Parts: sequence; C-alpha cells; structure tokens
Amino acid sequence: MNIILASTSTLFGGTYLAYLKEEIVNLFKGMEEIIFIPFARPGGISHEEYTEKAKQFFAGIQINVRGLHEFDDQAKAIQEAKGYFTGGGNTFLLAKTLHEMDLMAVLKHEIQNGKAYLGCSAGSNIGGLNMKTTNDMPIVYPASFECMGLVPFNLNPHYLDPNPDLKHNGETRETRIMEFLTQNDTKVIGLREGNWIRRIGNCITTEGTEPTRVFEKNKQPYEIAPGTVL
Amino acid sequence: MNIILASTSTLFGGTYLAYLKEEIVNLFKGMEEIIFIPFARPGGISHEEYTEKAKQFFAGIQINVRGLHEFDDQAKAIQEAKGYFTGGGNTFLLAKTLHEMDLMAVLKHEIQNGKAYLGCSAGSNIGGLNMKTTNDMPIVYPASFECMGLVPFNLNPHYLDPNPDLKHNGETRETRIMEFLTQNDTKVIGLREGNWIRRIGNCITTEGTEPTRVFEKNKQPYEIAPGTVL
Repeated sequence: MNIILASTSTLFGGTYLAYLKEEIVNLFKGMEEIIFIPFARPGGISHEEYTEKAKQFFAGIQINVRGLHEFDDQAKAIQEAKGYFTGGGNTFLLAKTLHEMDLMAVLKHEIQNGKAYLGCSAGSNIGGLNMKTTNDMPIVYPASFECMGLVPFNLNPHYLDPNPDLKHNGETRETRIMEFLTQNDTKVIGLREGNWIRRIGNCITTEGTEPTRVFEKNKQPYEIAPGTVL
Repeated sequence: MNIILASTSTLFGGTYLAYLKEEIVNLFKGMEEIIFIPFARPGGISHEEYTEKAKQFFAGIQINVRGLHEFDDQAKAIQEAKGYFTGGGNTFLLAKTLHEMDLMAVLKHEIQNGKAYLGCSAGSNIGGLNMKTTNDMPIVYPASFECMGLVPFNLNPHYLDPNPDLKHNGETRETRIMEFLTQNDTKVIGLREGNWIRRIGNCITTEGTEPTRVFEKNKQPYEIAPGTVL
C-alpha cells in the first residue's frame, strides 16, 4: 500500500495542505490526475466548492483533480483512477455517503492493491478499522461504523491534550478514548495536528513534528516519537 | 410532563448534583424511591458503582435509589416506578442499551404520562428528538439515533463557546451544530454548564445561571435569558 493518513489538512496559521506538500508530491509521483472525495462537506459546503479547494492546491503541483461526485458511475471512476484524496469534514456524513453508494469496499480494494491514498481528518478516520474514535458530531446515521481498515488500528485525528485550565466538565479526549477501550479491543492512534501515518507496503510509521499518543486496552497510554514503526 | 434536562451533573469545583439540589427536591416531591438508569457508564465504570454514586446524593434528600440493572423485568420496573434519573456518560452506549432492551419507548410513555424525569448530559440528550447533537464519541453502534422527544428540539449539553486562543483546527461546537443544521431541520438548544431545561406540563423554560444559545436552520444563532419560555 501507499498511503498517508493525516491528522489535519491545515496547520494553525498555515494554508491548505502546505505542511504536507513534499509528502504529497512523493505519494502521487508520476500521476497526472487523482480523484477527490468531497463527501465529508466541512461546514456543509457543496461538493463543487470543496472540490475546487482541492483543485487549487493540486494545480500548484501539476496534478489535475476531479471530484468523485462528477462521475455517473462512481465505482468505475474509482477503479480507473490512480490515486485518491479524501478531505476532512464530518465523518458520519462521509461514511454514510460511501456506504449508501457501496463505494467504501470498492475504494478499499483499489488501495489495498497499491493505489495511492491521502486522507485528512475524516478522510483518515475511514482509513482505520472503524469510525468509533472520530471526534465528529453524529449529524446523520450511517448504515455502519465499519471503515476500510487500511491500517490495523483506529485513528483519533486532531488529538488534543487535556487543558488543565478549562473550567468545564465535558470529557477530555483521553477520557473518551479510554471509554472506547472499555467497549472495544482496538488500538487507537491519537494523531496530534502536524502528524500523519505513512504506510508504504507493509511498513507503517508515524511522521510529523509531534510525538504520537497510543492507547491500548488495559494499558496506560504511551507516547512514540516521529518515525516510529507501528 | 415533569422533567429536568440538565447540561451537567457537576459544576466545576462543585460536588455531584449539588447545584441542582433544590430543583431535584421539588421534581421528586413526595417520592420515597426512584429508579436510576446507569447505562451511560462514564469512564466505563460499572452499573453498580455508578448507581452507588447516585444513591449517595439521593440519601441526603431522603430518597431511595434502585439501579435499573438490578431488576429482572426492567420494563415492568419502569412502569411501576414514580420517577427516574438518567446519569451522564456516553450517549451512544446509553441509547444502544435502551434500544436493545426495548426500554426507550417504555420510559418515554411513562414520562409523557406525568412521571418525573431527571436527565444529566447523556441523560438529557435522550430527552431530545434524537441524539445527533451529542458531543460523545461513537464508541458503540446503536440500533437508532432516535430518542424520547420529551421536548420538541435537540439538546447540546456542555455547550462550549469557541476559544479564540486555541491553536487547533478541530471544529468548534458551533461549527458542528451548524453542520447538523445543513442535514437536519431541528432546533438545537446549546445548554451551557449551569443551565437546565425545565418542563412542567406544556411549559418549557430554560433555567440556570447562563444565557442559552439557540440554533435553527437558516438563522443566525441567538441567545435567550434564563427563565425564557421555549
């Protein structure tokens, strides 16, 4: 496999995908066109608006982008493409749309056979075993929480450390992931912003600027350095 | 109806249910025993541990508490009880358990016929039309997101205003609720900590110390003062 699952598309104060540019050039090397999957619709923007945003970034690295929604036969479009990018937004909306159109399995099959995949945030969540560790609000009801399982664990993008100054009794991210582990025996990778998972063939590493927090059932959470093989 | 749907069980620096004590005494007036619904299991604690916590508070106001999990016939226990308290925790786990045991409809029926209900956080979410505006992590897959609809809107407990100092690109609570409104035409009440919804008969008011933020499709969010009739 040849994939990147990133915590976020945009670093604080940065521009869209800028911090990942070098990695993206490498991921999609030799490709003239990729497909963008706009179904997560951040802030409810349209598929067209969202695809335009992706097009603008990829124009700068000489790659053409077509939105998956533009095709009549979307399964065939996935089968014929060489690479894919799924943008962030709402994971429930993204998964619901892919499941309803029977595209999750088609996409998984092509990526497992070596086609390049870039996911950011919600697009990374669907690369995990299931979407049960998303931070998103369940604004729609998907037919299933199961995802592509491109890596043998779940992701928690935008992982955020507890803020000791917050006078608020909502759960911390760590509390939520520990609750997940009381009901599931699945490793969770807490990806801080600035980090991503890189898989080349069977080698899976954490990359980026921050340490990554790992959660496993019946273990204390622990930190691993960028470059660690998972 | 006679219900309280509270944002949180515990204010920052306070003790369990302390800020709601006077309201709770009034809600359950004349009752010697109520049923506690422990299925949301905050932090994964057991039904027994969680029920013990509720028992301790209610002992102080001379009300006995029995956990719903203690009964062999839980539907019958709900039908025979005079009042209910559903504690906070994970809304997905709470809704999954109630749906699986066919108890959501039983509970709704009794409360609509006048029995007293107190919900906190996840216990308040299930009082709304559906759980699509919970903040919780989807750690399990419920058979449905539909809830009791004790009020004609959805709740967002622990409503949190955007923090302009946060250098993080996760969505704000407001962004998430606005995304919900792109997919649903359902009013959402953003309940800040310290606030609760009180319904007596057909009169529904917001109560507590903070203004309450209201979200409706195709409208700017707006604030209402404590005591406002909804």
